[in-house]
Amino acid sequence: MAIPVQAVEVVRVGGEKPENKPDLVVAEEPLEIRVGHGPEDDRQQFSLSVTMRTPGNDKELCLGFLFTEGIINSFDEVISVKYCEDLGRTEGMENLMRVELQPFVEISNEQFKRNFYTTSSCGVCGKASIDSIKVSCNPLSGNSIKVTKEVLFGLPDQLRKSQEVFKHTGGLHASGLFDVQGKLIARNEDVGRHNALDKLVGALLQKDISVMHQSILVLSGRISFELVQKALRAGIQVIAAVGAPSSLAVDLAEEFGMTLIGFLKGDRFNIYTGQERVAL
Amino acid sequence: MAIPVQAVEVVRVGGEKPENKPDLVVAEEPLEIRVGHGPEDDRQQFSLSVTMRTPGNDKELCLGFLFTEGIINSFDEVISVKYCEDLGRTEGMENLMRVELQPFVEISNEQFKRNFYTTSSCGVCGKASIDSIKVSCNPLSGNSIKVTKEVLFGLPDQLRKSQEVFKHTGGLHASGLFDVQGKLIARNEDVGRHNALDKLVGALLQKDISVMHQSILVLSGRISFELVQKALRAGIQVIAAVGAPSSLAVDLAEEFGMTLIGFLKGDRFNIYTGQERVAL
Repeated sequence: MAIPVQAVEVVRVGGEKPENKPDLVVAEEPLEIRVGHGPEDDRQQFSLSVTMRTPGNDKELCLGFLFTEGIINSFDEVISVKYCEDLGRTEGMENLMRVELQPFVEISNEQFKRNFYTTSSCGVCGKASIDSIKVSCNPLSGNSIKVTKEVLFGLPDQLRKSQEVFKHTGGLHASGLFDVQGKLIARNEDVGRHNALDKLVGALLQKDISVMHQSILVLSGRISFELVQKALRAGIQVIAAVGAPSSLAVDLAEEFGMTLIGFLKGDRFNIYTGQERVAL
Repeated sequence: MAIPVQAVEVVRVGGEKPENKPDLVVAEEPLEIRVGHGPEDDRQQFSLSVTMRTPGNDKELCLGFLFTEGIINSFDEVISVKYCEDLGRTEGMENLMRVELQPFVEISNEQFKRNFYTTSSCGVCGKASIDSIKVSCNPLSGNSIKVTKEVLFGLPDQLRKSQEVFKHTGGLHASGLFDVQGKLIARNEDVGRHNALDKLVGALLQKDISVMHQSILVLSGRISFELVQKALRAGIQVIAAVGAPSSLAVDLAEEFGMTLIGFLKGDRFNIYTGQERVAL
């Protein structure tokens, strides 16, 4: 796959005198995700989301988004994921994807309102909101994994080294999945941190989502509430991030029994919740 | 104002042996923004957005959001911005704000669809989309400002030193406004980079938005399409960011004649567009 970068001309300032140099920036483009039943000319379809993303792994992004937002519960509920150009359209349709769902998957505005209420918007009333997420997320339990601090220390470097596009542009977030021995299983990059995670989840959803239940999720940046929520949907037990967590990220991890590690740099980190999964 | 942090207990790993220590994380909570005409019990109102934000400067966030998304064009179009608790409600209403608009400001689902089409969703068809933004943004022209490289070198440090909450938590994005001599005019912090900019714009909108036309916007992170778009709405001529820009951010800045500077660290930076505003 082509690396999603765009060539630009920059003036580099800092040395003896300014230089005009060619450079690369990471590609960012919008993607509209539509879902529907039956053939595309059937008007029963909904525009779910427009997200600014780095092109590439768009199918995985769509699948991951539908799964982490609670619209589908398995890959079996999906008939196809296609660019609208594959469906006989043209003109800019590489930024428009349509997911055809099995007839038994309910799609209606009411359904989506309910879904988004229990996810994105759920926090509006504070504590009550976190309770309402339990509809779509299950508390983690059984078969708890354990990881050593030495393995954790090595993960950010491994993730960084695997980042193809970051090397060229410095402009990307990454989500990486590692086993408890510290072996990289999969990783994705995107200008949006949620997209990087959705792409990772979407890729595993097509193969075997249960791999995520036994793995460490490593994030290149900070840990927001929404990232914890998406990880919970995928059954992740341990998040280890280079950056800081937010208050609601810590609250949600605590509530659902997830291990949350932040400020993982060099040979240091903080454990915010779930320390029983870390061998110190 | 209280600093929006939450106390947590962490296990700090890295020294001789792990220590249990008190720590602080940045507060993250959802905010729902509603707009309407007349008194609140009038049902003619719309829920515009739910954003995960750091509490504080919520009025500025609402005003900035409405302005940068093209729903209002000046502070004169606003009658009031209140928490729903101020309107006689209780229970978690500190996360729900209502903006009452002047009767002449059109609010309807159609109107919002159009607005959001020309902003957030606009890029779907590629180039055509950037054209459609011209409806709400004007190309920069006249009274061009000029800033020296020495002033630019000093801005990220000044911004960092002014970040109250970052000092305690390491968990925040910042947007700062500086004059061409490098003097800090205003700055805001938030877990969301768009929110940090909206808070800044909202604060200036209440005083004198034209200050932004003559100032440098400094961003603590990367430069996305949406940040450039919001800055264009506010008439910003120069963005200088610590991080990398995306392809669409560069395209949009080029199209509208904005100066875009990235990787501003120490005594180095790259100029992507609009180099005529930088004295080298």
